[in-house]
Amino acid sequence: MTETLLGEKNPLLKQVRRAVARGSLTEDGFAVAESFHLLEEALASDCEIGVVIAAESVKSAVAAHVRGLKRTRVVAVRDAVFAEIASTEATQGVIALVRPPAWTLDQLLRGRSLVVVLDGVQDPGNAGAIVRAAEAFGGTGAAFLKGSVSPYNPKSLRASAGSLFRLPVVAHADQNLLLAAIDHKRIALYAAVPRAKKGIADARFAESCAIVIGGEGRGVSQALLDRATAVRIPTSGVESLNAAVAAGVLLYEARRQRGTV
Amino acid sequence: MTETLLGEKNPLLKQVRRAVARGSLTEDGFAVAESFHLLEEALASDCEIGVVIAAESVKSAVAAHVRGLKRTRVVAVRDAVFAEIASTEATQGVIALVRPPAWTLDQLLRGRSLVVVLDGVQDPGNAGAIVRAAEAFGGTGAAFLKGSVSPYNPKSLRASAGSLFRLPVVAHADQNLLLAAIDHKRIALYAAVPRAKKGIADARFAESCAIVIGGEGRGVSQALLDRATAVRIPTSGVESLNAAVAAGVLLYEARRQRGTV
Repeated sequence: MTETLLGEKNPLLKQVRRAVARGSLTEDGFAVAESFHLLEEALASDCEIGVVIAAESVKSAVAAHVRGLKRTRVVAVRDAVFAEIASTEATQGVIALVRPPAWTLDQLLRGRSLVVVLDGVQDPGNAGAIVRAAEAFGGTGAAFLKGSVSPYNPKSLRASAGSLFRLPVVAHADQNLLLAAIDHKRIALYAAVPRAKKGIADARFAESCAIVIGGEGRGVSQALLDRATAVRIPTSGVESLNAAVAAGVLLYEARRQRGTV
Repeated sequence: MTETLLGEKNPLLKQVRRAVARGSLTEDGFAVAESFHLLEEALASDCEIGVVIAAESVKSAVAAHVRGLKRTRVVAVRDAVFAEIASTEATQGVIALVRPPAWTLDQLLRGRSLVVVLDGVQDPGNAGAIVRAAEAFGGTGAAFLKGSVSPYNPKSLRASAGSLFRLPVVAHADQNLLLAAIDHKRIALYAAVPRAKKGIADARFAESCAIVIGGEGRGVSQALLDRATAVRIPTSGVESLNAAVAAGVLLYEARRQRGTV
């Protein structure tokens, strides 16, 4: 373990600051994983950890977490400097730079697929909660179509509670390539639509399928609606549900139909 | 309709600013409902609208929304002043001060109850999404136990998408009073717990029941665990779900068991 007190203008810190501001990976391809919980999830995963940045006041706690992992480098920065790069207001003082696994669409669509497709989901908290629900209910992957938030936005990563280190995920997915792959593999495509005729209990989620979740404001795009079977979550009184809640209900229903409840 | 250009130091604006900062009602008991969507939901509800505050640049659009409602007062403020009181960064320039209905625990627990109990849920986005899901799946109400975020936090209200103007909700609910009322009415109490033995499909949500959702970090409190039947959402690979996703799945399962899917 190396400890270096990095200065404010250090290139590594600049990269982190930019990734937080942009809601993306760093230029070197690392995800900004902030919190002890995410550090633990990263350590338990197969992901490469580039470096762990600790606020000076908690550097021994951070060092204790990575003890025994000789190849993990910990660097400390002054608390005031850490507060500036942190993506949360109530920061715990630890950021791990984690290289997320690279996945292909084929890997998402393997076996008896259950893929969630994010179509214009903008809220990083919702996006992360969707990935977490997808892993929880036996999803085989999540495709983030272009126009959605990045799964590697630090806020998405935090809301995923570590699921992004494990579940196959494709960022900036091309809609046409996804549709072609789905056709080729004969995977059924569903879209959650408020006033659809078919209820989700009548969908056939036990077969290989992909389920589209639309963005918070706009819903599912017309191009996907034209191709998908529209299904309705049985609600009353409201226009729609929160995107993550809708995804959770659909994925739970899929798990129920697959007999793994 | 009255139009007045309020100055920055106006007492009404001070009240709004404080309510946004505290995440609560204003001192006069109004909820800060920010966005055109919430204004429309408030207008469609039975709630009293105290005043509508519009940023100067959108005041005619706001006026068009409330046209014909002679008793609704619209006041305009300079855009820069509005931006300071707004609770969102990408503000639409409209805030309605809405008096939410007052409900008692008895009103939540009426008929074949389906009450969601928020036990230490801190995230306002989750809290609002839970209320929205409760209305959507036929819930009879939501009880926010002391220690949870306020349902009238402007961010909760926004995440509820207007459900808070309709669903019976009790804020700062006393745990002992709630348990006494539940006992008295012989309502079954369930709590969502990650490693519980009983799956939610085996719970009897078709009967009158209340379901406890724990806070994001801590989960359900021991006092409630001692009284409730623990039920497990069938997940794998993750420690837990996002609180709003968990609530959505439980409420959907209740609706499914009640045969209204």
